[in-house]
Amino acid sequence: MFSGSVASFTVLGAPDLLVLTLSEFVEQANRICRACTMPLLVDADHGYGNALNVKRTVEELETAGVAALTIEDTRLPQSYGKAGKAKLVSIDEGIGKMRAALAGRQDPTLVVVGRTSAPSITDIADTVARARAYETAGVDAFFVVGLKTRKDLEQLRAAVKIPLILGSSGPELKDAAVLSQLGVAIALQGHQPFMAAVQATYEALKALKNGTPPDRLERLASKDLMNQLTRDAAYQKWVDAFLGRD
Amino acid sequence: MFSGSVASFTVLGAPDLLVLTLSEFVEQANRICRACTMPLLVDADHGYGNALNVKRTVEELETAGVAALTIEDTRLPQSYGKAGKAKLVSIDEGIGKMRAALAGRQDPTLVVVGRTSAPSITDIADTVARARAYETAGVDAFFVVGLKTRKDLEQLRAAVKIPLILGSSGPELKDAAVLSQLGVAIALQGHQPFMAAVQATYEALKALKNGTPPDRLERLASKDLMNQLTRDAAYQKWVDAFLGRD
Amino acid sequence: MFSGSVASFTVLGAPDLLVLTLSEFVEQANRICRACTMPLLVDADHGYGNALNVKRTVEELETAGVAALTIEDTRLPQSYGKAGKAKLVSIDEGIGKMRAALAGRQDPTLVVVGRTSAPSITDIADTVARARAYETAGVDAFFVVGLKTRKDLEQLRAAVKIPLILGSSGPELKDAAVLSQLGVAIALQGHQPFMAAVQATYEALKALKNGTPPDRLERLASKDLMNQLTRDAAYQKWVDAFLGRD
Amino acid sequence: MFSGSVASFTVLGAPDLLVLTLSEFVEQANRICRACTMPLLVDADHGYGNALNVKRTVEELETAGVAALTIEDTRLPQSYGKAGKAKLVSIDEGIGKMRAALAGRQDPTLVVVGRTSAPSITDIADTVARARAYETAGVDAFFVVGLKTRKDLEQLRAAVKIPLILGSSGPELKDAAVLSQLGVAIALQGHQPFMAAVQATYEALKALKNGTPPDRLERLASKDLMNQLTRDAAYQKWVDAFLGRD
Repeated sequence: MFSGSVASFTVLGAPDLLVLTLSEFVEQANRICRACTMPLLVDADHGYGNALNVKRTVEELETAGVAALTIEDTRLPQSYGKAGKAKLVSIDEGIGKMRAALAGRQDPTLVVVGRTSAPSITDIADTVARARAYETAGVDAFFVVGLKTRKDLEQLRAAVKIPLILGSSGPELKDAAVLSQLGVAIALQGHQPFMAAVQATYEALKALKNGTPPDRLERLASKDLMNQLTRDAAYQKWVDAFLGRD
Repeated sequence: MFSGSVASFTVLGAPDLLVLTLSEFVEQANRICRACTMPLLVDADHGYGNALNVKRTVEELETAGVAALTIEDTRLPQSYGKAGKAKLVSIDEGIGKMRAALAGRQDPTLVVVGRTSAPSITDIADTVARARAYETAGVDAFFVVGLKTRKDLEQLRAAVKIPLILGSSGPELKDAAVLSQLGVAIALQGHQPFMAAVQATYEALKALKNGTPPDRLERLASKDLMNQLTRDAAYQKWVDAFLGRD
Repeated sequence: MFSGSVASFTVLGAPDLLVLTLSEFVEQANRICRACTMPLLVDADHGYGNALNVKRTVEELETAGVAALTIEDTRLPQSYGKAGKAKLVSIDEGIGKMRAALAGRQDPTLVVVGRTSAPSITDIADTVARARAYETAGVDAFFVVGLKTRKDLEQLRAAVKIPLILGSSGPELKDAAVLSQLGVAIALQGHQPFMAAVQATYEALKALKNGTPPDRLERLASKDLMNQLTRDAAYQKWVDAFLGRD
Repeated sequence: MFSGSVASFTVLGAPDLLVLTLSEFVEQANRICRACTMPLLVDADHGYGNALNVKRTVEELETAGVAALTIEDTRLPQSYGKAGKAKLVSIDEGIGKMRAALAGRQDPTLVVVGRTSAPSITDIADTVARARAYETAGVDAFFVVGLKTRKDLEQLRAAVKIPLILGSSGPELKDAAVLSQLGVAIALQGHQPFMAAVQATYEALKALKNGTPPDRLERLASKDLMNQLTRDAAYQKWVDAFLGRD
C-alpha cells in the first residue's frame, strides 16, 4: 500500500496537502512496481483534479504497473476559505469520478476502488449511500476511512456486495477475525515502516553529528540484506551472461 | 553528500552498476535541494557518458540546485569482458571531462570536484599525476577514493593546492585532526544513515508480518519530528496567509 | 510565450482541458529554456490547484528558468456540472493566489503576472477591480484576456500602473501604436507558428502516404537551418575541445 | 518510427550526439504512444550504455508502450580521441547486448530488432556475420543502415531468415517492389515530416517578426484538424459523461 501522504513525504518532504503532482505520484509508484513483483495498491487521492483528471490518473497508474488504486470523493486540494474543514463532493460528482476512473482502465485486472471519508465528514447514512452509488457505477471495492463502530460496518456490509477496505477505523474495528467475518478484505494499520525509516535516519545522522564513530552505529542493513533487496545475485548473473568475464 | 550508490538503491532498488540515468539522478538531487537549505554535494559518477555528457550533467545538476558535484575518471559503466576489473580512462580523457564539466557551469559558486579511484586501480604516482592534471584543468577540489597511507596523502598534498576530499581511506587516515592538518576538507564516512533506514523499514515490516500490533512498534518518528521535517509550521502559515480561515 | 494550450497539444495531444500536470508543463518549459537564451514567458494557467499549488508552480518554473509567468483567476479545471461555463474565483481567492505566487519567487527578476478572463465572464468593472487588487498584492504586470473596446482598455489603464498584457482582444485593440500609447507591453497574436508546424507535419505525412517520393517534398528544413537550430557549431567546438580529434 | 536524432532535436534542440538520456527518450516515446493507437517503432540507439543498460532500455520502452525497438552495435557515445570515426563494438559484445535486450522483454509481442551500421564502418562480410549472430541470439528482425548494393542485400537475405529493415540505403535499393521481393519489411525514408514542421515554424515566426499580420499567414492547421488530432470529440464525450452539463 502506497499512500498519498507517504508520497508527499518521500518526494517533497512536505505535509499531505496535495502539493504533489500526479506525475510525481506516478513516478514514485513506478519505482516501487519496477523494484518488486508484489502487487501494489496506491492511494490516488481525488484523482488529481476533476473527472477528466481522474481518468488520466488511472491511465498513468495502470502504465506504471499498479495492481489497485483508490479514488476518493473528498474535495481536494483544500478550498479557499475553508481551512481545516474537509468537505465531500456531491454523490453525483463522485459517481462521475468513479465512472471516469473505470473508463480510464484498459487492463481488466486493474482494481479500481472507490474511497470516502464520509464517516468523519458527514454520517453513516451518507457513507452507505456513497458505497451503493459507487458499487452501481462499477468500482471493484469500497474503501472507507474513519468508520467508527461495528454497527456502522454491519450496516455498510449489508448495503453492498463488493469487498471493503478500512482505514483509520475506531477501536471496535481492530480485530482481524471480526473484520474478516464482516467481509473486510483489507484493514490498513498506518505507515509505521516509513516512520521507522525516518526515525532511524534521524538517529543515525544525530549520532554521527555528535561524534559517534560510524562503526559504532547499530542496526544498519547488512551487506547480505542490501544484496537481497537490490537483487544483487540477479544482476551478477546478468553481468556474467551479457557482459562476460575474462 | 548524495552518492551514486544511494541514488541507485533509492530510485531503482538496484546495485551500484550505473543503470540509473542522469535524469533520474538529477531528479533525486532536485528533490533533496527542494526540501532543505543545506548545501548538497553529489557524486555524479563519470558524468553519464563521454565529455559531452559530462557537460550536460553539470548543467542539469546546477539547475537542480546542488552546491558541489564530483566527476570521476573511472571507465563506467563496466566494459564488456572486463567484469570485476575497474579501469581508469587516460589522464587526457580525464582532463577533457574536467574541462567539459567546467564549461558546463554557469554559476561560478558551483563547486566542481575531480574524483579518482586511482589508488586502488593504478598507484599513488598516477593519483598524483591526475590530481595535478585536473587542478591545472581548473577543478575546485580533488576527491580521492581508497587512499591507503599517511605518506600517500602527504605526497598528494604536496602536489596540489586545491582542497582534498577523501573516501574509503585506509586506517591511517581516520583521525579528523590529522586529516585537517593535511588539508583534507571532507572525509566521507559511508552511508550509514541510509543503511539505518533500510534496516528499520525491514524490521518494522517483519514485525508487522509476524503479528506485532502497530502500536507496539518502537522507534517511530513522532508527530513532532514529522512536522519539523515536513516544515509543517511553514505550510500552516502559508495556508493561513493564502487560503484563509473562516 | 509558451501557452497552456500549446503545452497540452505538445505533451499530450489533448485539448486544453487542464489534464496536463504541473510537472509536465515545467518539464516542457525547461526544454525551451535549455535550448535558447531568449527570455520565456509562460502561461501557468491557474497554478495547478489552490494557492499552495500556485506557490509550488512558481518555485518549479523559476527553477526551470522561465523569465515570466502568468497565474489566472479562472476556476480550473472545469467544475462538475458546469460544462462550458467558465467561472472566476472570488477576488479574495485571486489575491491569495497572487500573494502565494509572489511568496514562491526567490529570484527577484522573475516576472509574476496576474491574469484574468473577466471581460468575457463578468464585466469591465470586475476586470478593473481584479487589476487593482492584484496590483496591490504586488504582481509585476496584469494580463487581460478578451478585452473588447478601446474604452475598456482606457478604463483599465487609468486604474493601475503596472504594465498590461493583452490576449484575444477585440478588433479595436489590434493597432500596435495605439496599444503602445495605452501602456500595453505585450499583445499576444495567437499560436500560429505551432499551427503551421502541425499543418506541415500533416501535409508531409499525407504526401508520403500518397506515394510522393521523399525527395520531392518541399519546404523542409535545410541542413544549415538544422545546424543553426541545434547549435551544431558549438557542439562541434565542444567535441574538439573535450573529446579530441586524432 | 521515432528516431534517436528526432528525439534529440525535439527534447534538447541538440544534434544527434547521444546527450539525450534514456529517461528522456522513454518519456518522449510514451507521449507518442499515449496519444495514438498506431504501433510505434523506436530507435533506441545503443541501449544507452552497456548490456545492463540495454536490458533496462527494453524494460522502460516496453512500459512506455512501444511496439518495436532497435538496438545497434555502434560504439556510442563517441569515444575520446576518435572524433568523426564511428566504430562498432565486437560481435561478441553485440551478441551480449541482443541477449540482454531479449532478457529485458516481458511482453512476447514486443519486437526486438538488432541494428548495425556495419556496411559503412566495416564491410558486407562483417554485416552478414552480425546479422547471423544476432538472429541466433534471438532478435526478431535485423536493421541495416547504409547498405549499398542489391548484391549486398541479396547476400544478407541469403544469410538470415528474419525480416530486414533498411535505412540510408544506396540508390539501387529504393524500389519498394524489389525490396519487398528481397524480404525487406520496412525501408525508412528519412525524417521529412519533422523537417517540414521545423521549416514551417521557422517561416511562420520569421513572417510574424517581419510584420505579417497573423491572419495573413497561410497553411495553418484548421480548427477541424486540431480537433481531430487532439481527439476533441472523445474529450467532449467524456466531459458530458463524467462532468455533466447543466
